[in-house]
Amino acid sequence: MRHDPFKPAKRVAGQRKDVWSIVNEAAEQGKVTPMVNMGQGFFGYNPPNFVLDAARDALSRVECNQYSPTKGRPRLKKAIADAYKPFFDYPLDPDKNVTITTGANEGMLSAFMGFIEPGDEVIVFEPFFDQYISNIEMPGGKVVYVPLHPPENGATQTTSAGDWKLNMRELEAAINDKTRMIVINSPHNPVGKVFTKDELQAIGNLCVKHNIIILSDEVYDRLYYVPFTRIGNLSPEIARLTLTVGSGGKNFYATGWRVGWLIGPEHLITYVSAAHTRICFSSVSPLQEATAVAFEQADAHGFWDQSKKEMQAKVKRFNEIWDELGLPYSDPEGGYFVLANLAKVKLPEDYEFPPHVASRPRDFKLSWFLIKEMGIAAIPPTEFFTEKNAHLVEDWLRFAVCKDDKVLDTAKERLRGLKKYIQ
Amino acid sequence: MRHDPFKPAKRVAGQRKDVWSIVNEAAEQGKVTPMVNMGQGFFGYNPPNFVLDAARDALSRVECNQYSPTKGRPRLKKAIADAYKPFFDYPLDPDKNVTITTGANEGMLSAFMGFIEPGDEVIVFEPFFDQYISNIEMPGGKVVYVPLHPPENGATQTTSAGDWKLNMRELEAAINDKTRMIVINSPHNPVGKVFTKDELQAIGNLCVKHNIIILSDEVYDRLYYVPFTRIGNLSPEIARLTLTVGSGGKNFYATGWRVGWLIGPEHLITYVSAAHTRICFSSVSPLQEATAVAFEQADAHGFWDQSKKEMQAKVKRFNEIWDELGLPYSDPEGGYFVLANLAKVKLPEDYEFPPHVASRPRDFKLSWFLIKEMGIAAIPPTEFFTEKNAHLVEDWLRFAVCKDDKVLDTAKERLRGLKKYIQ
Ligand SMILES: Cc1ncc(COP(=O)(O)O)c(C=O)c1O
Ligand SMILES: Cc1ncc(COP(=O)(O)O)c(C=O)c1O
Repeated sequence: MRHDPFKPAKRVAGQRKDVWSIVNEAAEQGKVTPMVNMGQGFFGYNPPNFVLDAARDALSRVECNQYSPTKGRPRLKKAIADAYKPFFDYPLDPDKNVTITTGANEGMLSAFMGFIEPGDEVIVFEPFFDQYISNIEMPGGKVVYVPLHPPENGATQTTSAGDWKLNMRELEAAINDKTRMIVINSPHNPVGKVFTKDELQAIGNLCVKHNIIILSDEVYDRLYYVPFTRIGNLSPEIARLTLTVGSGGKNFYATGWRVGWLIGPEHLITYVSAAHTRICFSSVSPLQEATAVAFEQADAHGFWDQSKKEMQAKVKRFNEIWDELGLPYSDPEGGYFVLANLAKVKLPEDYEFPPHVASRPRDFKLSWFLIKEMGIAAIPPTEFFTEKNAHLVEDWLRFAVCKDDKVLDTAKERLRGLKKYIQ
Repeated sequence: MRHDPFKPAKRVAGQRKDVWSIVNEAAEQGKVTPMVNMGQGFFGYNPPNFVLDAARDALSRVECNQYSPTKGRPRLKKAIADAYKPFFDYPLDPDKNVTITTGANEGMLSAFMGFIEPGDEVIVFEPFFDQYISNIEMPGGKVVYVPLHPPENGATQTTSAGDWKLNMRELEAAINDKTRMIVINSPHNPVGKVFTKDELQAIGNLCVKHNIIILSDEVYDRLYYVPFTRIGNLSPEIARLTLTVGSGGKNFYATGWRVGWLIGPEHLITYVSAAHTRICFSSVSPLQEATAVAFEQADAHGFWDQSKKEMQAKVKRFNEIWDELGLPYSDPEGGYFVLANLAKVKLPEDYEFPPHVASRPRDFKLSWFLIKEMGIAAIPPTEFFTEKNAHLVEDWLRFAVCKDDKVLDTAKERLRGLKKYIQ
């Protein structure tokens, strides 16, 4: 007889409090209310009306409320193939090259479940979107980390997110016979870097040389402020190894809708779909239909241009405060995250942090202090690093600017309170 | 260097065509159109208006379109705790005893991911809902099968779904030191059996004796036509081992909404949530909100009584055709599936079946023939059995009656065409 029936599986047994719980719990007890939450990357406003109307319409149709095909609704697969056509030199067959998932997140899990056997290795850049790690470990994969190095002068002057650099020798050294996949994220969360064509070409060449599947997380693909390259389109050799990941939640301001997709060659997509079917069976029908309409109508509404311009304006609007305070930041090339460097901020020496914060790097203390004293929540980025490399970013904090301008203005006003702590 | 970068993981590499593809592809080329699809268990009608209105309302609210907490929206967890209160003698804490998942399906996967280590065994009754198998195998679990035996006279006379019996000696013999979980499904798909209190007590006692976690799939819990018992409420000893699974899709006629939940003791729910977070991160927000409202308002609308009465009337309406044809069926005690026994139907000897149908048991041929010649799709239940036990049901077909009455009437009219094949 088994003596502990309640023992959890190792894959879920980890006990360290995750950053979202720490930040959210702290946010509930801050002194300044209501909290300005620039922590999690959800939008502070609704999807555009043409998208909401499409969702409401879908709710009236019987077939849009019932199970969709496991690979996704044909209309959505076609809308995505059409929408991505301008970005790919090769044709996209909606049935063979596109598969729909429950958010980009479950899509990436499906990719790992489709190809990773226990012991296989997957290369991930630090900092990483935290879900990659558990998603790789779930099928028994081992994560191999390669750091993105922050600009050396990032603590003293404002730099570009493009200055965060991959060391190609470090990347090549991380590859061995067990390397099965690599995860790339451009535009990058949390760095805001858009990888250049040259960088992607170099990474792609390495993957071709070593036969490594490329999982290219491009969920912020409509928000780039410098030229944006899709690695999956660099050459036929790279294309046959590449899965491109997209997110309706990120594209259309609806992170709660859980509609994502993967695009790629049939020999990869087939097994992503097979895994997805075993994980979620199928994805949410009415919001798949609405996302299809969203893609069909986006151009006519000038939505892509507008969403990019609006987000870039938010980045600029918010970052004025750092210039005003004389604190350097990393100016994003894409996406909606800003990394600010708070090395110059001196926290009061006798300030009391709870043990689960005191035991973490300085960025957790900065985050805690901002929440409690100023009513602003931001994310400590060491959470997205291994312990070994966490020191690289312990002076930085990540702010999500996908919020109403009014909220950004309140945030700026509150951040002025930092002045007296700046040395 | 790895020579086949495209080799899929074993967990997704299976090649046999699944029953849904066979039936759906056949349905596309039938002679009689439009097909009456009584195959998959999706509803042929919409959720009630008060539920649709709630979904439309949710779409207007910013926070309902963005990420929900990974464990689910507080309002939904509370609505579920309240709605289940009458069924449980112990109190349900919305934050500790309820967790929201992406359909019951991903909820069950989360339970297996939360507790199964490679090599652990999980007992499943045959016939089984097919997703159980891949969901158990994904974390490396081994499925151990115990058959439900059809009534011996099921080929000659109409019987009750309750006559499908579990042999408790067979069940006990299947238990060993590696047995970690057991899956129970009541009301049962595809059998339509509602397990009696005595049966559940006997199963529960065995689980207590051997410390086995009980995953009780109760997605059809509002559709029972005989007394319905929840195993999780039989005794405190059983309760501490039991996870109860529910589905908004099944409760509210919205299989495409992908909102499910698990209810149980905190020491189990914690790890289900932890696994769910790693799989889907969070579940679809606006439809969680709508499901919360659906639960809050269901009683006031008399919805539960009405939905049960309506479904029972559909079962009765449809089954008249079997009485008329003199074909026996298994009368369901719950849910919306009917198993009809077609042993007396003699298929034309020279009828040509494609190889992927010809190679399967007789029920696949019956299904194919009904689709092609009569324009009715039903599911061959041997798909839900192991090869060893498939012979038990090779004369049966499963019909989903959750369709408009008009559709059921068309089905009956078409089934009259069977007369000339009945011996
Ligand atoms: C880099 C990155 N990838 C994937 C995701 C998940 O996207 P989705 O919400 O579509 O699952 C996020 C969400 O924050 C992200 O930042
Ligand atoms: C017995 C059983 N369990 C679970 C499910 C899945 O439910 P959901 O659609 O909520 O994932 C089904 C769907 O057919 C079912 O029949």
